Amino acid sequence: MSDFFGDIAPVSYNPDAEGLAYRHYNPDEVVAGKRMEDHLRFAVAYWHSFAWPGGDPFGGQTFDRPWWGDDMAAARLKAEIAFEMFEILGVPYFCWHDADIRPEGDSFAASKRNFDEIIDLFAEKLDSSKVKLLWGTANLFSHRRFMSGAATNPDPDVFAWSAATVKNCLDATHRLGGQNYVLWGGREGYETLLNTDLGQELDHMGRFLNMVVDYKHKIGFQGQILIEPKPQEPTKHQYDYDVATVYGFLQKYGLEKEVKLNIEQGHAILAGHSFEHELAMARELGVLGSIDMNRNDYQSGWDTDQFPNNVPEVALAYYEILKAGGFDKGGTNFDSKLRRQSLDPSDLIEAHVGAMDICARGLKAAAQMLEDDALEAPRRARYAGWETPEAQAMLTSDLETIAARVEAGEVNPAPRSGQQEKLENIVSRYV
Amino acid sequence: MSDFFGDIAPVSYNPDAEGLAYRHYNPDEVVAGKRMEDHLRFAVAYWHSFAWPGGDPFGGQTFDRPWWGDDMAAARLKAEIAFEMFEILGVPYFCWHDADIRPEGDSFAASKRNFDEIIDLFAEKLDSSKVKLLWGTANLFSHRRFMSGAATNPDPDVFAWSAATVKNCLDATHRLGGQNYVLWGGREGYETLLNTDLGQELDHMGRFLNMVVDYKHKIGFQGQILIEPKPQEPTKHQYDYDVATVYGFLQKYGLEKEVKLNIEQGHAILAGHSFEHELAMARELGVLGSIDMNRNDYQSGWDTDQFPNNVPEVALAYYEILKAGGFDKGGTNFDSKLRRQSLDPSDLIEAHVGAMDICARGLKAAAQMLEDDALEAPRRARYAGWETPEAQAMLTSDLETIAARVEAGEVNPAPRSGQQEKLENIVSRYV
Amino acid sequence: MSDFFGDIAPVSYNPDAEGLAYRHYNPDEVVAGKRMEDHLRFAVAYWHSFAWPGGDPFGGQTFDRPWWGDDMAAARLKAEIAFEMFEILGVPYFCWHDADIRPEGDSFAASKRNFDEIIDLFAEKLDSSKVKLLWGTANLFSHRRFMSGAATNPDPDVFAWSAATVKNCLDATHRLGGQNYVLWGGREGYETLLNTDLGQELDHMGRFLNMVVDYKHKIGFQGQILIEPKPQEPTKHQYDYDVATVYGFLQKYGLEKEVKLNIEQGHAILAGHSFEHELAMARELGVLGSIDMNRNDYQSGWDTDQFPNNVPEVALAYYEILKAGGFDKGGTNFDSKLRRQSLDPSDLIEAHVGAMDICARGLKAAAQMLEDDALEAPRRARYAGWETPEAQAMLTSDLETIAARVEAGEVNPAPRSGQQEKLENIVSRYV
Amino acid sequence: MSDFFGDIAPVSYNPDAEGLAYRHYNPDEVVAGKRMEDHLRFAVAYWHSFAWPGGDPFGGQTFDRPWWGDDMAAARLKAEIAFEMFEILGVPYFCWHDADIRPEGDSFAASKRNFDEIIDLFAEKLDSSKVKLLWGTANLFSHRRFMSGAATNPDPDVFAWSAATVKNCLDATHRLGGQNYVLWGGREGYETLLNTDLGQELDHMGRFLNMVVDYKHKIGFQGQILIEPKPQEPTKHQYDYDVATVYGFLQKYGLEKEVKLNIEQGHAILAGHSFEHELAMARELGVLGSIDMNRNDYQSGWDTDQFPNNVPEVALAYYEILKAGGFDKGGTNFDSKLRRQSLDPSDLIEAHVGAMDICARGLKAAAQMLEDDALEAPRRARYAGWETPEAQAMLTSDLETIAARVEAGEVNPAPRSGQQEKLENIVSRYV
Repeated sequence: MSDFFGDIAPVSYNPDAEGLAYRHYNPDEVVAGKRMEDHLRFAVAYWHSFAWPGGDPFGGQTFDRPWWGDDMAAARLKAEIAFEMFEILGVPYFCWHDADIRPEGDSFAASKRNFDEIIDLFAEKLDSSKVKLLWGTANLFSHRRFMSGAATNPDPDVFAWSAATVKNCLDATHRLGGQNYVLWGGREGYETLLNTDLGQELDHMGRFLNMVVDYKHKIGFQGQILIEPKPQEPTKHQYDYDVATVYGFLQKYGLEKEVKLNIEQGHAILAGHSFEHELAMARELGVLGSIDMNRNDYQSGWDTDQFPNNVPEVALAYYEILKAGGFDKGGTNFDSKLRRQSLDPSDLIEAHVGAMDICARGLKAAAQMLEDDALEAPRRARYAGWETPEAQAMLTSDLETIAARVEAGEVNPAPRSGQQEKLENIVSRYV
Repeated sequence: MSDFFGDIAPVSYNPDAEGLAYRHYNPDEVVAGKRMEDHLRFAVAYWHSFAWPGGDPFGGQTFDRPWWGDDMAAARLKAEIAFEMFEILGVPYFCWHDADIRPEGDSFAASKRNFDEIIDLFAEKLDSSKVKLLWGTANLFSHRRFMSGAATNPDPDVFAWSAATVKNCLDATHRLGGQNYVLWGGREGYETLLNTDLGQELDHMGRFLNMVVDYKHKIGFQGQILIEPKPQEPTKHQYDYDVATVYGFLQKYGLEKEVKLNIEQGHAILAGHSFEHELAMARELGVLGSIDMNRNDYQSGWDTDQFPNNVPEVALAYYEILKAGGFDKGGTNFDSKLRRQSLDPSDLIEAHVGAMDICARGLKAAAQMLEDDALEAPRRARYAGWETPEAQAMLTSDLETIAARVEAGEVNPAPRSGQQEKLENIVSRYV
Repeated sequence: MSDFFGDIAPVSYNPDAEGLAYRHYNPDEVVAGKRMEDHLRFAVAYWHSFAWPGGDPFGGQTFDRPWWGDDMAAARLKAEIAFEMFEILGVPYFCWHDADIRPEGDSFAASKRNFDEIIDLFAEKLDSSKVKLLWGTANLFSHRRFMSGAATNPDPDVFAWSAATVKNCLDATHRLGGQNYVLWGGREGYETLLNTDLGQELDHMGRFLNMVVDYKHKIGFQGQILIEPKPQEPTKHQYDYDVATVYGFLQKYGLEKEVKLNIEQGHAILAGHSFEHELAMARELGVLGSIDMNRNDYQSGWDTDQFPNNVPEVALAYYEILKAGGFDKGGTNFDSKLRRQSLDPSDLIEAHVGAMDICARGLKAAAQMLEDDALEAPRRARYAGWETPEAQAMLTSDLETIAARVEAGEVNPAPRSGQQEKLENIVSRYV
Repeated sequence: MSDFFGDIAPVSYNPDAEGLAYRHYNPDEVVAGKRMEDHLRFAVAYWHSFAWPGGDPFGGQTFDRPWWGDDMAAARLKAEIAFEMFEILGVPYFCWHDADIRPEGDSFAASKRNFDEIIDLFAEKLDSSKVKLLWGTANLFSHRRFMSGAATNPDPDVFAWSAATVKNCLDATHRLGGQNYVLWGGREGYETLLNTDLGQELDHMGRFLNMVVDYKHKIGFQGQILIEPKPQEPTKHQYDYDVATVYGFLQKYGLEKEVKLNIEQGHAILAGHSFEHELAMARELGVLGSIDMNRNDYQSGWDTDQFPNNVPEVALAYYEILKAGGFDKGGTNFDSKLRRQSLDPSDLIEAHVGAMDICARGLKAAAQMLEDDALEAPRRARYAGWETPEAQAMLTSDLETIAARVEAGEVNPAPRSGQQEKLENIVSRYV
């Protein structure tokens, strides 16, 4: 046991606690027919909490961590302390990138050896704890070799390197019993159209994803393959812009039944959407897979990856997820980082505890709204006109037939109130 | 002949003129193998120039026009003066909305009678002038009956009304020899998810569009059916968000071979894209149809619909269009409005003349860049690695085969400069 | 009594009500030493609720109101129904613009006669009800004469017209016992720098405001003169951009002791600030006057003027106000409008009731945080280093003296955690 | 002579060159009465070109430079190659930050020793070349000690450290004959209001700046002290938001006659302004000092610091500068960085050469517009009404007197066209 977290004890549910405790997240409490833990399926993101040094574009490292270093001893210490944090928090899941768990070696094979050692260590840890793997992923964006893309790189050698990397990460995810495998294309896009062959790059990306799906089936991985949309940053324009864009891409390359989405609030905001929009759209398109629950500052134009702290927003997100039947293999990953001034180990704990409580409050509010039919009843009433046989018949009719009826004066629509403020008041009563 | 435009004479090409003249737009000058007029295919938008009163959310009408009024005499006078402007400008095309050319009647049939009278008048005008119809469209957003959508309205009667309206507008477009028929879904979307059934609305929209395509074939309309993407405004969220979103929608409803896109710079900007991005994406997806050439202010968050005035931007747009082979049935519609303080008839002429010159400069620069292979040569060089048999073979290979090669140390990518600044300098030499 | 609101009864506090009721706003409940009504000082904005027809840039009127019309009978009916709503809501205040309470006449004098008649009517109403006037203001932006500005118009006749209008509005506000007089410069700014003399316009605006202040003193008006900042919309660039900009302007024209600010959440957001930032800045600069409590959609780039519905945001706003000692003459004006699909009279009531409850929840949370010293204690601790005599002495020292000490090695700063997440968690426990 | 730039020869003016050359920037050509070099006063920013490794928030170093390293030998090599680049470009000026020219030592004194050695080297270089120092500045934002601010840090020791640093940088700037000294407060602001005492921080910042001004006078530095506004990034909210905000700050702390502004296009854009707005505002307020000529991508919400490439934008910027009489001690600093994929030494040269040509084109267009009175004549005509004695008298009158005249019917303003499109067309003829 390291002394990194000092005397911070495992956090438990205690609504009346003075100090650190879950005041709302009660893993065993049943909400909408399931334990809260089984609904929310919280995961800690290894990279932000353990590999990010606190830098920003105008400043370097602010955090002092005993595991800084680029050797295997540091990587092992980092893993030890990560699992200590998972235990303190009592989270059921974590997620990793390859590049953030192991030091880069001086060749692909050397990096892979480092990676495999850490995966071995993770396997032991998973055996001896209740923590599980929500998803694994490959970091195909940090190293300079990926500066012009991974699957979409003008250099076929980078495509090859990326393919080999994903194979190893998918193998490791499979071995560790991961529930999902995620692809985020931070460099799949362009900085300037002037040097970019957009059509060729999209085709390569489509082909790459097909190979990943083929390999998943070959090895018998039962988890979901997930794409994570984001419109920009680091790349000026990213191909996986938002849910609707990715869905169009999946259809074009024949993958809409094979691949789902990992949707992040911060990325939704950068794309000009609300989180609930992206979730609802994915649900209706049949591709809702998992979520990254980390907010962006609406007024900072970059990806701020903050821990959630607004119950009304979070409640609307879980509402859409519950309408989809809840998570199957997906979960709630905190792809969130501390503010760079939050230097202390206790800040790591505080941040996650606060976020988990916010999510618990959001989930409970969402479940209650659904149980009370508080929003669905007025929604059904609003569309009730479509349930008549005449209305349904129109959907299989044609313009001329419909026009004849309208021109004959049989149709004269009367606007009805959309009652937005009343519905917002209803939500406010739950949050 | 009205005296609205006073002594403003038809505008002609004269690069050395002191006063009003085309200094760059020379219709008969051959650029990249075609007359400039045949490349640019300019169209005036009837609504902005003749039906918009100069209002904004905080103020009403500023323009005084002799044709203000809601009777047929006013509508006829408006049409007369519109054609006078087309003659002064020498533009080959115009575009209309039904609601902006005729007064609303007190029933569907009455509105249709008004509409048909104006279409008769247009038919005469087209016979007696060189002006042609680039496209027609239905205004399914201004009247309060459309406040909750047209094809996506919760009330099936509005769906019916919309279907009948589109039928008439498509008939009229066909009759007038229109080259395209455009659908812009300004109210197809939602103000709040709380009262919206997003999945049902999308299905209705897909069905509606299929009916339009069926009807087009039935009547033998040879023009293109075009969707005009826009992310928001007037509606908080619009379904036809951007090119990629619409393409996904078309695929889902089996229409990607039937429907193309009318792409507007202002809407691209609102969606977070450059105009050239949207054009390139549409070209690569095979759905580039026509353009609305009107810029938005990047720093005003609403649709400012200004006349273009930045040659470097316009050149990059025409570059993508030329790479697509130029317009077939599409053209350059100025969906632009005067600033509301630009009160004078001469402002209408100035605005179009300036815009046409900007487009001419952009087209010529784009054509020259293509002819000189100034951007395509470095682009091909950047992707040249993919032309080897080994690289091509990789695209039909699989993860394991590729990974074996990488793990064996055969692949070690070396980053190469993307030369963005150099490419930008090249463009600057042309604009 | 009109039948506009049908059987809607006056709304009262009842936390357990099933239907329409205040669940949180209890006017007589004492919070932080004052009755909630006296803290919040709610006002209804006459213009949005009674004069706005539901239009937007792409569509016209959606609301049907019995008082539509431009004659005095309609204006009187509008006033009657407005006061009926004030009674139903039990709000203590309202606010008006001249142009929204009376029909425009065909001369300045004719408009003034109409205005005076309505002011007479308001005077009677105020005598016979508990409603009071929070503020009056002049609409110097809707009519086309103001299209190029009011005090900043290139035409001195518009300056004169504006001065006369403000005089009358200030007289009327004084007569009705208004607590404040507000100036919002919706057209004070520019559409294009190309035709604007920015320096001359600012000087005219400074001179105009000095005249208003002089006149206030002359007539003995004891209320506050307030400027309402907004960065843009309707004008592309408005001079009263935000709190800091207006403060600089006030200083330049010698008015920083005479004029305070009316700060709106929506306008703060358009300027790139949080509401609490603008409030805190105004408090620290000594110019916090009153607020408009209406949110903007962070993802729509125009002024959406929605009723507040997010308690965490509202609590942070009232926190800054309570830190300033609460409102003196200012109050909470709902400069909010219904969504244009919210057609029903009951929507007007629902919207205000929901908003008032949100504000009440925010106020109570803010008051409790202050009482508990929950945020102030850690804030004081963070700055405690400045309380030492050595630190204070440094503020009256000079660079050389300080540098000598640093170069001698006496100073070696050690970063300490900013604890942002922990502080956010504290706030979450209150909201 | 290093071989970093290989065979790249000094760049000279040659409008007909095939390869690398200035096609528009001709230092000795007289424009508006001055040599172009003396107008534009170009400077290279040491940090972006020589100290930035190509990282972004999702990836590390991409550039390979022979001077990477944190010892004095590397710092000296960096300086040698920097001056080689200045010679190749023929730029008259450069600018530096302390932290980017010297390695950090393990104490303040050690860092100062390193710094002084490089300043010695610079002094030799300046003696032996035509290059001069446009400005120096202190980097008070990169090191973790500044994470919570420099002058505004809650820890007085950081205030002290910052004061000592600025003293040394100002001394060095003075010694090197620098024309200006710049302060950019990248960390002066806040991440969260929850832990911030905004009023105290502003007071400290005001006091700090007064100390700097006092010290400037004490040592007889004749250059300008400049503040560089920026609204956000790295800090969520920065106090020096924009020109108007800084002007208000300067007035509050009695410095509006002592301090001017260094205005950057990219920062203007982040603040929601056009560059020309910020320049015009600064000119009218009497605080226009110098410029950073680097654009932001309007559609990326962070500071992209790109080299300028749009003549129409740049022309409008120089137009405002020429109206202010041109630069006195200020100049045109390229605070621009290569895109991170632009790996080659030649990219550094290309980027600056292209930018200098863009600026030259902009300057020439601006000068010609002024000489032709192309914009000023219509502007004067627009405001001509204010030149009458009656209009001028109104500015010293009062509300009552003016109102009496208006009520008597003597004033009836008639709107006149603002001619925005016509003016935009005029500009287009020059660019």
